[in-house]
Amino acid sequence: MTAPPELLYLLAGDPAELAETLSSMHGADVAEALNALRPEAAARVLAALPFDLAVRVFDEPELEDRTEIFERMDPAAAGPIIEAMSADQQAELFRELPERERARLLRSLDSGTREELSLLLRYPVTVAGGIMTTEYVAVPPDWTVQRTLDYIAQVGGAKETVYAIYVIDAATQRLQHVVSLRELVLARRNLPVGEVGDRQMPVGVAPDTDREDVARVISKYNLLAVPVLDPAGKMLGIVTVDDVIDAIVEEQTEDVQKLGGMEALEEPYMEAPLFSMIRRRAGWLSALFLGEMLTATAMGFFEAEISRAVVLALFVPLIISSGGNSGSQATSLIIRAMALRELRLKDWWRVALRELPSGVILGLILGIIGFTRISLWQTLGWQDYGPHHVLVACTVAAALVGVVTFGSLAGSMLPFILRRLGFDPASASAPFVATLVDVTGLIIYFSVALVILRGTLL
Amino acid sequence: MTAPPELLYLLAGDPAELAETLSSMHGADVAEALNALRPEAAARVLAALPFDLAVRVFDEPELEDRTEIFERMDPAAAGPIIEAMSADQQAELFRELPERERARLLRSLDSGTREELSLLLRYPVTVAGGIMTTEYVAVPPDWTVQRTLDYIAQVGGAKETVYAIYVIDAATQRLQHVVSLRELVLARRNLPVGEVGDRQMPVGVAPDTDREDVARVISKYNLLAVPVLDPAGKMLGIVTVDDVIDAIVEEQTEDVQKLGGMEALEEPYMEAPLFSMIRRRAGWLSALFLGEMLTATAMGFFEAEISRAVVLALFVPLIISSGGNSGSQATSLIIRAMALRELRLKDWWRVALRELPSGVILGLILGIIGFTRISLWQTLGWQDYGPHHVLVACTVAAALVGVVTFGSLAGSMLPFILRRLGFDPASASAPFVATLVDVTGLIIYFSVALVILRGTLL
Repeated sequence: MTAPPELLYLLAGDPAELAETLSSMHGADVAEALNALRPEAAARVLAALPFDLAVRVFDEPELEDRTEIFERMDPAAAGPIIEAMSADQQAELFRELPERERARLLRSLDSGTREELSLLLRYPVTVAGGIMTTEYVAVPPDWTVQRTLDYIAQVGGAKETVYAIYVIDAATQRLQHVVSLRELVLARRNLPVGEVGDRQMPVGVAPDTDREDVARVISKYNLLAVPVLDPAGKMLGIVTVDDVIDAIVEEQTEDVQKLGGMEALEEPYMEAPLFSMIRRRAGWLSALFLGEMLTATAMGFFEAEISRAVVLALFVPLIISSGGNSGSQATSLIIRAMALRELRLKDWWRVALRELPSGVILGLILGIIGFTRISLWQTLGWQDYGPHHVLVACTVAAALVGVVTFGSLAGSMLPFILRRLGFDPASASAPFVATLVDVTGLIIYFSVALVILRGTLL
Repeated sequence: MTAPPELLYLLAGDPAELAETLSSMHGADVAEALNALRPEAAARVLAALPFDLAVRVFDEPELEDRTEIFERMDPAAAGPIIEAMSADQQAELFRELPERERARLLRSLDSGTREELSLLLRYPVTVAGGIMTTEYVAVPPDWTVQRTLDYIAQVGGAKETVYAIYVIDAATQRLQHVVSLRELVLARRNLPVGEVGDRQMPVGVAPDTDREDVARVISKYNLLAVPVLDPAGKMLGIVTVDDVIDAIVEEQTEDVQKLGGMEALEEPYMEAPLFSMIRRRAGWLSALFLGEMLTATAMGFFEAEISRAVVLALFVPLIISSGGNSGSQATSLIIRAMALRELRLKDWWRVALRELPSGVILGLILGIIGFTRISLWQTLGWQDYGPHHVLVACTVAAALVGVVTFGSLAGSMLPFILRRLGFDPASASAPFVATLVDVTGLIIYFSVALVILRGTLL
């Protein structure tokens, strides 16, 4: 990525002019422009910006080198900026900081911010508690609509969202009711806020709810934010819809990379250091290779048969890859259905009952194509499969039915097994399934050959 | 899915009691409960509900059999419900309706609704115009904050969102400025609305912007809705954040299924009719099978070599699968980076420059493991690879370097080629790449063998 030329021009010029230009830009766009600079230069630009704009830019997850930029800033300038950032972004920044820097910056914060931060840092970023923010609008149920609106006008600037107002019982500190700003604006001004809006129970999530499930709740109920509640119903914070979108996109990137048969990268492809990327690929690739070695063992077991009927070897790649492909289809379907919570562990047998007939039918289709191909090439004289070519064609066709059926079953059951063992089902990658099916496929193929070709070729 | 027992109980009882219970539930939950019923029964329940609740339930994309339920309702009752639904959901319903029903229902709507609908139906659901809604709050720039708030209080109930207020120039009909309800509530009541908030240019999308790009804009600028503008800057509608989440999730499901080597399903896995699912899998599976047939041709080409040195056949699955696995890793990385717009077409050579060294290093790692495995089994006497076992091990190792390098390159370039040709890069599935690499892998392997083993085994 390169810096827009006008920005580079401005950087060389008058800081006041620079600040003027940047302040008419969106925070996310300023962050992207700064991504093109080295952290030292970005730190200088940010120090020259008006305080409010600097805070807005630091609040953008789009700012890639946030940690490095902070480390290069004067702590006296960095402290107030951190104080002014939103709580969830503060927590993300602190997670990225090296231990030493973290302690240093923590000391420069006031005790309220410090307490809030330590609450958020208690949870990993994969759950609600780790992406929530503590800056929401909470009011007691007996306040009037007018008083609530005045309160929002007064404190609203410091809150992550003012579109959901949380009505909290003063005695028990429990969440009673959620009123939207829309309902509030439409309501009579002297009504108690506890009586505004509909009577539905507020929707909430637990601090340890997986962020994918938080996304599902927000999406299902079309919320702009969802409250995070402790087991007693006390409010800990809120997760807003924009944080949830980032979480969905990140999870999906991880899933696609795992499906491709590797560990998920932490950075974008072009920015990941070459050797860190190779390391994340080499692990799975070597593991799959070790598994795939069993094919050499299996083939060795049938070496005598191969040397008697070399024609059998010709169809080995065709047959085992068909099993792998049908397995890859099944595993992708199941992994996605699991991610969308359409399937649960206990549904495994219903899936098996669907995959069994699917596999048989798909295997029959490929078997017919395979039989036709061998017979056709033989008839046209393009290839000579020997005097027993019909039996060879039958062997290939029958093996295909077996291998594709096994592939569909194995591919669909693997995600269930992985989840049952506590692993991410998305690790049941296409390469993983293919490796599993390759070994079994060879055994199926040669066993079928032994039955059909006994007394003729074998 | 089964209906909650209390609902089944209520359905048998008093309609008033049923309506009472349902009206304290969230629309999405009522929709999910109704999903457990047959369309006839669901239509009866919905007809018994208070009008407002019925509209809310029909507005939920969670209601699965919406079209079937509508077809079973009295048109006199269905018409007003459709009128009251939000415009984007109306459009979705109409897209699903059979032609005949569509004309019938269209006649029962008033002319304003009909006009709006025909605007939305002009666009497919994959672009901004197809998921936008025309129900937003628009005001002229000279209205005061107070007047705008009063206007919102008056019309807000019928708008999809009131959290973004669009300031539109009366003369040119162009979007000038966007004010959030938050800014409005915090602003002085006598200020003209055109002067509220910051000076940034409003962010907008075109009606034919891909829905994935709309999601990216909303996520980048943390918006609750993005305006859809025609080339002249006139406002056509807005896309809200909740519709965008649904769109992201749908796109991801399609991508995962394509990555698995099949056409994307239209329904959830367990609900897709068995034969429609088999059809979507059979197409790609057969195409891949036809491609994979080239391996039999390639193997046939080397049949003489195999019969002279059967030991070579033993490592065929091991070698070609390693190429497929490295290709699958590369292709997943690139497809995801393209989906996130981290990579563009013109970046192909930068990717190739990364994949070339990655492939060589990964190939060397597997080559060393493979060499060790063959030598070890030979030394331990677990398998006898003949007098030239060192040369065989060298052949396997050298072929692995070549095949894995080719796999990484082919897997990373395929998505670029597909996009260049106008296809979805996600069609470059792991099975597709594996098939491509299998044929080439065989040729690389036997060519290396011809060089290394000439004069000894071959």
